[in-house]
Amino acid sequence: MRATMLTSVRGIELRQVADPVIHFPTDAVVTVTASCVCGSDLHGYRGHAATVFPRRIGHEFVGVVSETGSEVTTVAAGDLVIAPFAISDGTCAHCRNGVTTSCAQGSFWGAPDRRGVLADGAQAEQVRVPLADGTLVRVAAPADDQLTPDLLALSDVMGTGHHAAVSAGVKPGCTVVVVGDGAVGLCAVLASARLGADRVIAMSRHGSRQELAAEFGATDIVAERGPDGAMRVMDLLAGVGADCVLECVGTQDSFDQAVAVTRPGGMIGCVGAPFYDIPAARLAGRNVGLRGGVAPVRAYLPALLADVLAGVIRPGKVFDLELPLADVAAGYRAMDERRAIKVLLRP
Amino acid sequence: MRATMLTSVRGIELRQVADPVIHFPTDAVVTVTASCVCGSDLHGYRGHAATVFPRRIGHEFVGVVSETGSEVTTVAAGDLVIAPFAISDGTCAHCRNGVTTSCAQGSFWGAPDRRGVLADGAQAEQVRVPLADGTLVRVAAPADDQLTPDLLALSDVMGTGHHAAVSAGVKPGCTVVVVGDGAVGLCAVLASARLGADRVIAMSRHGSRQELAAEFGATDIVAERGPDGAMRVMDLLAGVGADCVLECVGTQDSFDQAVAVTRPGGMIGCVGAPFYDIPAARLAGRNVGLRGGVAPVRAYLPALLADVLAGVIRPGKVFDLELPLADVAAGYRAMDERRAIKVLLRP
Repeated sequence: MRATMLTSVRGIELRQVADPVIHFPTDAVVTVTASCVCGSDLHGYRGHAATVFPRRIGHEFVGVVSETGSEVTTVAAGDLVIAPFAISDGTCAHCRNGVTTSCAQGSFWGAPDRRGVLADGAQAEQVRVPLADGTLVRVAAPADDQLTPDLLALSDVMGTGHHAAVSAGVKPGCTVVVVGDGAVGLCAVLASARLGADRVIAMSRHGSRQELAAEFGATDIVAERGPDGAMRVMDLLAGVGADCVLECVGTQDSFDQAVAVTRPGGMIGCVGAPFYDIPAARLAGRNVGLRGGVAPVRAYLPALLADVLAGVIRPGKVFDLELPLADVAAGYRAMDERRAIKVLLRP
Repeated sequence: MRATMLTSVRGIELRQVADPVIHFPTDAVVTVTASCVCGSDLHGYRGHAATVFPRRIGHEFVGVVSETGSEVTTVAAGDLVIAPFAISDGTCAHCRNGVTTSCAQGSFWGAPDRRGVLADGAQAEQVRVPLADGTLVRVAAPADDQLTPDLLALSDVMGTGHHAAVSAGVKPGCTVVVVGDGAVGLCAVLASARLGADRVIAMSRHGSRQELAAEFGATDIVAERGPDGAMRVMDLLAGVGADCVLECVGTQDSFDQAVAVTRPGGMIGCVGAPFYDIPAARLAGRNVGLRGGVAPVRAYLPALLADVLAGVIRPGKVFDLELPLADVAAGYRAMDERRAIKVLLRP
């Protein structure tokens, strides 16, 4: 079968590799119906994250189970499934606490597990899924081309945007600012509206992203950045600041932007990879809290899936470019150059 | 009247000063029945915080109202009152949000207000109280020597310990670790027990403080510090870590101690003045959040006072040395040398 390989900085190739097989009795093999390219895939692609070449890449997919190991009980051949971006057993203390990304047996796609066995990357035709009972979520609906983008968004970006909102404590009636208009930021807007926020201010200066933010429930769009952006947000919020600020980028600029618009006693939900320093005294002086990190998407999947199947949310709208897997390199280029919000790949 | 002055590094004197008078119509004058020395008073005393000498000092007191300005409506001459460590109007957006320490008109004892008018220090015979309606809390009970320490503890340390617990999200059934065995740390133990925590682990290596922690509701005492202390806590918590960790010191060592024992997805409630760097990637990798800061004690006072008056909590037990105001310098020395947990001063 064919799988995407990161072969060098900015080197993406679709190569012929061995078909996956059941390695542990808790494994399943899934035939991928759609995968995608993530902003975080770009860290390795751009050479910002240390990596070993060549390696399998991709961590978001939906597909159909083709085979299961002898100990797998919750999914069976023929089932339509969603795989979140992290592998988890669903039974350890951390999984029971809802923090599946800290699973005691957990691992990540394209990386070695705790026994040193490499997990497959998701941008491929087939994937071996470790800990299938804990990791996979069965979709109680027939495979459907129209539904696929929404299901695929649940594998990472929608769950991550939702995690930002949950971490910041978004609840009915509150005010929210979302910093970042990538797929995660846009999903954070959708998650905030879904959780009942009264006001959702999206910070975005790109026309198409502003439009999607509004469609997802943003009540206000602020195109300015830095001090001008902060001043504009504070004007909208009567000088008080927002109850909840969702930091969906991870740079120092975006983090500082988030701090500047959070009200005293407010919370910042952080889901950007944290390439920033945290000003401890500035937070404590104003009782600004922060929470978040590697989103436990698996824990959120059942509730978000129910809303997708009921047509309440359509997070798949973040995919604005669809390519065959054969053109995966073009997908990376489109993401790298910010020509696409998020690229969906079909085998 | 007489008031405590910080005259130099480690220079504490009781000096004759002018009697306070009503300066604004929203002022009251309170005759102090008890004040105390705070760990944070030691920052200036030790020369760790930049300050101007001489200056009035002290920010915790209870007393009886002797006079009120023409606009004061909630307290009257003869009322027994508690003054929290910060002055607030009770009406601005931040006060309504419960963050009284960010009050739009707020200020602190011994420091200039927003109009440049200096507020009195609390270690004195009388104090002018700005924004008396917002700041003071009337005690619906007669003045009583036995009750005084409990009321006085509500002016800062009990509310601050409670803030650590609230900020970390302590709730019935959860596991708590308290880092720091000063008066605030001990009150954080009491607050955690009051909020229904199932397990409260106090980190303390001083016998008398360990005893009071146990009396306040600690289920376990860990005397070790650093990696040994973290290992001991993790053993007690089955290797998972605590749901809520209350950081009541503010040094890098204590903060690192807090991070080391928080479970993935857990929260650190921070009330120590933050003399530390925050390891952003370490927090985000495990979804450890943090919240807290300058405690909005005024917002918590009514509920905590009700429990004091009902005899449910006795936070005044943190006072283990009582001195006449004339001996205030000896009180500072006892606190500085850690011979006393907290010193109560009676005029």
